[in-house]
Amino acid sequence: MRAAVARSEKLEVADIDDPLPGSGHVLVKTIACGICGSDLHAAEDLRRFADLTGRVGGPMALDPDRDLVFGHEFCAEIIDFGPGTERTLPLGTPVCSLPAIVGPSGPQPIGYSNEFPGGLAELMVLQEALLLPVPEGLPAEHAALTEPLAVGRHAVARAELTGGEVCLVIGAGPVGLAVVAALRERGVGPVMAADYSPTRRRLAELVGADEVIDPAARSPYGGWADLGIPTGVGELAVMDMLGMQVRQTVIFEAVGAPGVLQAIVAGAPPRARVVVVGVCMQPDGIEPFLAVAKELDVRFAFGYSPTEFATTLETLGRHEVPADALVTLRVGLGGVADAFAALRHPAEHGKVLVTH
Amino acid sequence: MRAAVARSEKLEVADIDDPLPGSGHVLVKTIACGICGSDLHAAEDLRRFADLTGRVGGPMALDPDRDLVFGHEFCAEIIDFGPGTERTLPLGTPVCSLPAIVGPSGPQPIGYSNEFPGGLAELMVLQEALLLPVPEGLPAEHAALTEPLAVGRHAVARAELTGGEVCLVIGAGPVGLAVVAALRERGVGPVMAADYSPTRRRLAELVGADEVIDPAARSPYGGWADLGIPTGVGELAVMDMLGMQVRQTVIFEAVGAPGVLQAIVAGAPPRARVVVVGVCMQPDGIEPFLAVAKELDVRFAFGYSPTEFATTLETLGRHEVPADALVTLRVGLGGVADAFAALRHPAEHGKVLVTH
Repeated sequence: MRAAVARSEKLEVADIDDPLPGSGHVLVKTIACGICGSDLHAAEDLRRFADLTGRVGGPMALDPDRDLVFGHEFCAEIIDFGPGTERTLPLGTPVCSLPAIVGPSGPQPIGYSNEFPGGLAELMVLQEALLLPVPEGLPAEHAALTEPLAVGRHAVARAELTGGEVCLVIGAGPVGLAVVAALRERGVGPVMAADYSPTRRRLAELVGADEVIDPAARSPYGGWADLGIPTGVGELAVMDMLGMQVRQTVIFEAVGAPGVLQAIVAGAPPRARVVVVGVCMQPDGIEPFLAVAKELDVRFAFGYSPTEFATTLETLGRHEVPADALVTLRVGLGGVADAFAALRHPAEHGKVLVTH
Repeated sequence: MRAAVARSEKLEVADIDDPLPGSGHVLVKTIACGICGSDLHAAEDLRRFADLTGRVGGPMALDPDRDLVFGHEFCAEIIDFGPGTERTLPLGTPVCSLPAIVGPSGPQPIGYSNEFPGGLAELMVLQEALLLPVPEGLPAEHAALTEPLAVGRHAVARAELTGGEVCLVIGAGPVGLAVVAALRERGVGPVMAADYSPTRRRLAELVGADEVIDPAARSPYGGWADLGIPTGVGELAVMDMLGMQVRQTVIFEAVGAPGVLQAIVAGAPPRARVVVVGVCMQPDGIEPFLAVAKELDVRFAFGYSPTEFATTLETLGRHEVPADALVTLRVGLGGVADAFAALRHPAEHGKVLVTH
C-alpha cells in the first residue's frame, strides 16, 4: 500500500507492506486522517519524541530508526476481518476508533508505532472491540475530527467547571478550537480566545468564542478588571475578608510552545485555574514565585477517556459542531510532506486532513 | 528600640524609633519570632523580592532602599493600646496575630513593610482585631510556630485529601515539617519525607513521618512500584481499562529552590497531585511534556486563611505538635545576622527563633 512514511527524519511517500489483521483486528481502508500538532513535533525531532514518551512509560517502544506512519485522527471503512473477530459491524461500515491496538508485543498507540501504521496510509488494522460506527449522515471527514475534539472535551473536563467561570483559551489552533467548542457545548462563559492568526480567530468565533483577541493588538491578560476579577493578591485578600465572591478564571494553554506557560503564570489573576493541553516538547521556564503567590492551580491534560471519545463522535453526529469550517485544507498522500512543512510555521489553518 | 534592620542589603542591629500604635492598634513587646525562608530570600535580594511581590499586586509598596525589619512569625505581649481600641484582652496578655495590619496607607504585611517593623525588633504594633490570645500553658516560643505551621496546614488543605493518599514531602525544613505535622494530624499516609540533612530527617520522624529518605542514598521517587502505584502512563491506561483503582499520590514541594519542581515532574507517577509550597524566587525550568503526558495537577499554595491560622494555634495549645523539638536554635537580636548567614546554606536546622 502507499503511505507517508517517516523515515530517516524525512516524510516520504512509499510503498510498504499491507498490514495484516491479527486476532481481534479488522482491516480498514482509511478515508480521512487529520494531521496533529504532536505529529509535527514528532516529525521534527523523532528522537526527542521517542525519548520523552519513553520517560513517561508510554505504551510504546518507538524506534526512531525504523519506519513509522503517523496518523491517529482517522475515519476508515471496514474491508476485512482478522481471526477471532465478532463481525458485528458489516463490511463497508465507516468507523472511528481510539488510536490504540493490542498487538503481539502488547498495547500500541496507532500512529506512533513501528508495528501498526497510522492513518497516513491507505490501509490500517484496528482493534474490533474499539470500533465506533460513524453516525448516519455524518461525513467521514467530519468523523475524523472526533479525536482532536475529544482532546478539547477532556481538557474542559479537567477544568471541573461549575458554571459562571470566565474562560480564556490561549491559541486557536485545532486544540484551542476543540476547547472552545467543548466550552460552548457546556454553556459556560464568557469564552475568550486569543490567537495571532486572523483565520484562527475567525474559526474561534465560528465554534462559539464570545470574544477573540489578537495578542499583537492587546494582551489577552489585560481584561480582568473589566470583568470584576481582582488582579492583585492584596485586592483579593481584602475581597476575601469582606466575604465577596470572586469569579473563577480558567485559562487554557492550547499552544504548546516555550514561553506560553510563563506568559499565563505572569498574566493570570490570583487563584486562576490553568489547564495545559498544548504539548510543549522543549524545556520551558516559569517564575514559580508568581504562581505560588497567586496560588495558581495548573492542571495538565492529555488525551481523553473512551467515554469522552464516544460522546464527541455522538456530538458530531448531531451536527452540533461546525465541522466543515474546521477543516481548512485537504491533501492527498503526496501533499503530506508539504502540509507538515507548512504547519511548522505559525499557521493560518484549522485542521488539515489527509484524504484517500 | 533595638531591631535587626535590613538596610543597604545588610542586616544590622540598630536603634530605631519605637512604633506608635495608631487607631485600632496595640503596642506589643516581642517575645519570640521565627526566621522564615522568605526572610532569607528577601534579605538575599531585596530588590528582586520587592519586584516579584509588586508584580503579583501584593498588599505592599516595599521600598528596598528604606529600612525594613523582618519577622512575621511572632508571639508578643500587649503593653499598650492605641486609640479606638476595644481593650478586651488585658495588658500583659501573650498574643499571636496574622502578620497584617491596616495603616494610613492601607493594609500592610508585618515583616515586609517599611512602615511597620516585624518581630525582629523589641516592639511592634499589631491590629487589635486580629489578636489571638496564646492558650493557657503554651509557651510563647511554641506559639511563635503558629505561622509556619499554618503554612503547612494550608498546603495540606490545598491537596484536598480524601484519605488513602500516598504523601511524599520533598524538603524537611520548617515548611516541610509543618506539612508533615498537618498530614499526621489528618491521619493520612504513608507520609514520606525526603531531606539531605540528617537533623531534618530526624525532625520529620519526630513530627510524624512514617518514612524518611536521604536523597543522597536513594531517589525519593523510586518507591512507587512497591506501593502498588503505576509509574508509566501505559501501565495506568491498562489499569483504567481493567477498572482497577489507583492510589492517589500527593507530592509536596517544600524546598523552594530551582530544579526541585522539575525533579518532581520527572519523578512523579502519572496523575499525581503536586502541591508547591516552597517559595522559589528564581526563574525555574520544567519539561512540560512530562507533566502533560502524566496529567499532573500542580497546585501552588501560599499563606493560610485566618481560620487555618487560629486552628493551628489551638492545635499547639493542645500540645499535639512536638513544638520544642522543632526549635533547634535560639538567638538574640545580636545573633540575627549570623543566623541568616548560616541558614543560607543547606541547613541543619528546624526553626530558628529570635528571642527578646
